[in-house]
Parts: sequence; structure tokens; C-alpha cells
Amino acid sequence: MMPDNKILISFERLKSQLNSILIEYGFTRQKADLLSGIFAGSSLDGVYSHGVNRFARFIQTVKMGIVQIDEEPELLNSSGSVEQWNGNGGPGILNALRMMERAVEIAGESGIGCVGLNNTNHWMRGGTYGWLAAEKGKIGICFTNTKPNMVPWGGAEKRIGNNPLVIAIPREKGHIVLDMAMSQYSFGKIQEYAMRHQELPFPGGFDDLGNLTHDPEIILKNEKTIPIGFWKGSALSFVLDILATLVSGGDSASRIEGREEEYGLSQVFIAIQPGFLPENEKDRLIGEIISFTKNVPGFREGDKIYYPGEKTLFIRELNRKEGIPVSEKVWTEILNL
Amino acid sequence: MMPDNKILISFERLKSQLNSILIEYGFTRQKADLLSGIFAGSSLDGVYSHGVNRFARFIQTVKMGIVQIDEEPELLNSSGSVEQWNGNGGPGILNALRMMERAVEIAGESGIGCVGLNNTNHWMRGGTYGWLAAEKGKIGICFTNTKPNMVPWGGAEKRIGNNPLVIAIPREKGHIVLDMAMSQYSFGKIQEYAMRHQELPFPGGFDDLGNLTHDPEIILKNEKTIPIGFWKGSALSFVLDILATLVSGGDSASRIEGREEEYGLSQVFIAIQPGFLPENEKDRLIGEIISFTKNVPGFREGDKIYYPGEKTLFIRELNRKEGIPVSEKVWTEILNL
Repeated sequence: MMPDNKILISFERLKSQLNSILIEYGFTRQKADLLSGIFAGSSLDGVYSHGVNRFARFIQTVKMGIVQIDEEPELLNSSGSVEQWNGNGGPGILNALRMMERAVEIAGESGIGCVGLNNTNHWMRGGTYGWLAAEKGKIGICFTNTKPNMVPWGGAEKRIGNNPLVIAIPREKGHIVLDMAMSQYSFGKIQEYAMRHQELPFPGGFDDLGNLTHDPEIILKNEKTIPIGFWKGSALSFVLDILATLVSGGDSASRIEGREEEYGLSQVFIAIQPGFLPENEKDRLIGEIISFTKNVPGFREGDKIYYPGEKTLFIRELNRKEGIPVSEKVWTEILNL
Repeated sequence: MMPDNKILISFERLKSQLNSILIEYGFTRQKADLLSGIFAGSSLDGVYSHGVNRFARFIQTVKMGIVQIDEEPELLNSSGSVEQWNGNGGPGILNALRMMERAVEIAGESGIGCVGLNNTNHWMRGGTYGWLAAEKGKIGICFTNTKPNMVPWGGAEKRIGNNPLVIAIPREKGHIVLDMAMSQYSFGKIQEYAMRHQELPFPGGFDDLGNLTHDPEIILKNEKTIPIGFWKGSALSFVLDILATLVSGGDSASRIEGREEEYGLSQVFIAIQPGFLPENEKDRLIGEIISFTKNVPGFREGDKIYYPGEKTLFIRELNRKEGIPVSEKVWTEILNL
């Protein structure tokens, strides 16, 4: 493969470039501003795979008419603190932002809000909506289904999605944001190992005979990645798909299967007021858990534990100071959009 | 180790035996009836480790004054559809039943209910509360923290709990109930392998040097079990502890650590109305997901996939017909209580 040189670009430069492209493709100023901020922000936070690296493909889905730039989510049903919305095939990021905001709004009124969203598009980086809830002082829980891209435990073909799950907890000194897919490794991560001709440190998928393998090339060829915890992640992924489908009244992985692009997804957004303790007591409690967990001897010199979201803050700071590393290839592709 | 012969006992016989013991130990008729039903019911469903096998130890905690038989949960705070309760050190099963019922009640009024419970005792089989919600036609989500019994990823000592997570979905043809701890294997399962002098099929913990091992003896000796998906389950467990602690205003694993018995736990119970589709449409949707996932070719002849809860129904039927297998040792112990 070609060497992939990185150039450093400031957040502002990146956002403004994406912004003008979005406007060129017909997005309103307001939507272009939101979207470019999220794409550039994901790269700022170090989630390059679902930030700038994914932008050209997003524009592709706009051109194909899969992402309908003027559509907005629409309330279909509501009962108390639970609502069901139709994403109308609009931009996945905008739909998801709106739905988490709505869940936060409901939680502001009644302590907890739950919003199901059907007929939406890829939300890119799931963590975005967790950070949003936490910024607004709420616990945020959200998950999405995906096309079947994992082998269920006991099977030999893809039947379950990697269904990312996000859990965010607000905290003065830095929110805690877990953003995890149900697959042991993302395809992006497996590709990185393949490019470096390195084995995965832990099994990441199946070989042709159904044995677990560390070989990234074989996993990419077979497209048979494994769920976290083998049978456990398989079951959790299955259950998340049912939850997303039921609460949103939308399509499950079984219906998304067979579409050339991944559209018509189902998602759930839950916001919860973070308990009844006074703010400073909450922060003390969480600080206690963080210290207890992090102050642990490691097996090896230098072993260290990070809480979910901790590295994000570090990378955000670094990238803001030094610029966001963007692959030259990706940047050229974007400049040519 | 001694051979562990099993005898077959009917659900009714088992329940009635446990019932009289509970009454002897001072439980009211109503509470004894509920508790004996749950203990015997867990064994009926094949969850022996948290059914009859755990009964003598439960009585032990009653004798020690850890479980306070007359205490009941008490509402501390409420705001809309979120409530915070104090378990008052009462029996964990009764507290948890009451809290999931309360969450279901709130969900009946406003679509979703969320209850945090602090200062409670071990809830035994988490699935119990998932089945309860599903029986009442609601999605049930609950989780508990535990004492630190797992090594966080990157550390060499126990700092996180295995924090069981339950997700239940009601369905006419059989509820879907996921009941999973964050550890790859339960201690009970590792003990079974040790007793049979067999290796675990997948790594279950660390050896003295911090390498992953399949050896059940070493894992039991070191008490260093691993989370599902390595770093991912470690992060999920960490986040569940924070959620339980915040929402209940209770103790985290860091405070439960150091107690000789596992008491003063924090739990969360969420019930959600399962969307807005008509009943038959819901069942059709779930059926579709089940068929799609189950009708998958396996790598090996006879490979088969079960949805979470499917085997439970099968074992429940079998044990009801043929009797519940109870270890002779356990039964003798119970008769001597």
C-alpha cells in the first residue's frame, strides 16, 4: 500500500473546508455548520475513522440520494416520556443530535426521556451524542443497529450488527463517555494491523474453518469478526437490535441486510438526570471510583488505566494545539469534492 | 473432590422446604412465600448457582445480621419518572422485586420508569427481575454493582465488579431475557472446569505474570478473572458501577471493597413500554430477528444458536416434568438448616 503521509490542519481550517463543501452540496448554512463541526470535531477528538476520513463517503451517500439533505425527523408517537420519531432518511448526524437533545429535554421535565428513531442514516461517531447529553448535565445512553457485520456465536455467517453502545456520565472535571461497538475490533483497526503486516494482539475473527484467528488479512477477507466476550457480546448485540427495532418501530438488521448502503437504521436515545446528590457530592463519588480503579498496580512497568473519555480530552487538547493529523490522501479527496 | 450426586426434587417440594426454613428464621408468611418461590424458581430455570445452591449462604447472611429480614425499601427522592430508594439492608431479592415492580408501575404511567436502589443485598439471579418486567409486558433493564472481583484492563489487582446486566424483552412466544455478568466466566463455571480438571475453552483470567490463561486452577488461586472483550468489558463494568452509584446515591465497588460480605450494593431498575406497534406486529418483528439470526449455517455439524432466554424455557419445562436436579450435598445442608 502507499505510504499515508499525515498533514496537520487546524480545527477551524478543517471545519471551514467541510462547511463550504456542504453548502455547495445544498445544505443550509445552519446544517452545514452543525455537520462540519461534528465531522471536524470527531477528528479533533481522535476518532478519525468517523470524522474527516468518513466525509467523502458521506458526500457520496448524499449524491446517491441515500442521505436526504432537507429531511428532518418527525414525531410519530408519544406516550409520557417515550417518543417515536421517523428520521425520514435525513442526515444521520443531524437526526441523532436532535433526538438526543429531545431525550435531554424530556429528562429535564420528568427525570428520564427515551426516544426511538427509525428510518435514519449512519450517525458516524456514536460518542458525539453521549458528549452532548453530558454537556447538558444528563446521563446519556444511546445505541444504533447496523447492517449484519458480525458472526453470531455458533454461526458461520454474518447475522448480527456491531451495534455501537454509548454511555455518558456528566462530570465537572471531564465527562465519562463510553463509546463501544460490540465487535472486538473495528474494521478500521483491523485494517491498520493489516497495513502494518502485524497480527492482532487478541483474536478478532474466524478463519475459513471457524477457528479464532489473530490474522487481520484473513479476517478482512472473510469479513467474520467476533463479538466481545464471544457468546456474551453476541447476545448483547442481538438484544440491542431488538430494543432499537421495537422502541423505534423501525428496521432490524435482518431488514437492513441486502441493502447496498447502510440506511434505514433504528436508534434509541435515553437521557437520565444523574441522581439526586448535590453536584459536588456527585463529582466526589465519581472521583473516588476513578481513583480506586486507576490506582492499581499493573503486571508490567508503565501499565496504565484510562477511564472512558480520558484519552479523548488529552487528544482534543493536543490536536487543538498542534493541529489535527489528516491523511494527505483523505485531504486531497476532500479538496476535490 | 467428592462426587456430587444429584437428586431430582419437584419444584413444589423444594419451595415448600425452603419456605418452612424461612418461616423458622422469622420471615413473614408472605415474604417466605416470595423468597422460596424465587430460590426454587431459579433452580427450576437451571440457574442452580443462584438458586438452591445459594440458599444456605443466604440463611447464613440472615444469621449474621447482614440481611435484615423485616426491613423494607423506602422512597428517598423522586423527580418525575426517576426515583431513589433505600434498601435498608433488607433481603436483596425482595428489594429488587419491589423496585422492578415500581419501575414497571412508573412505565405504565409515563412510558418509562427508572429506580435507583442503594443499601441493598445480593439480588441472587439478576434474570428474575428481567422476567418479572417481561411478564408485565415491559422491557426491563437492570444492573447491580458488586464487590471488586475483576481486574480492570491494564491493572493487576481486582478493582471492578462483574456487575451483572439484565435486558428483558416481552414476547408472547417466550420472553427474551439476557442476564450477563461482565466477566467472561463466572466463578461457578470456572470451578466446574477445575473439578473436571479441564481447561477453559477460552482465556478466563490472568496467571501470575499477567498472561491470559485457560487454566481454571490458576484463575481460582489468583482470583483474577477477565472482563468480556478485555478492555471493552472493563470499561463497561466501570461505567455501570458509576451509573448504579449515581442514580441510587449509594456505594460504589470502591466502598464495598473491604467488607467481609458483599452488602450495601447499588442497583438500577428501568422499565420501558415496548414501543408503539400493535402486539402482533411486535411479535412478528421479533420473530423475524430471531429467525434471521438462528437460521445461520454453522462452521460445524450441529452448531446451533439460541436466543437469550430460549434455553431457560426448555430447562424450565424439563425440570418441571422430571424434577429439579439438586446436589445431594446441597440438599443435606438445606435439610440441616
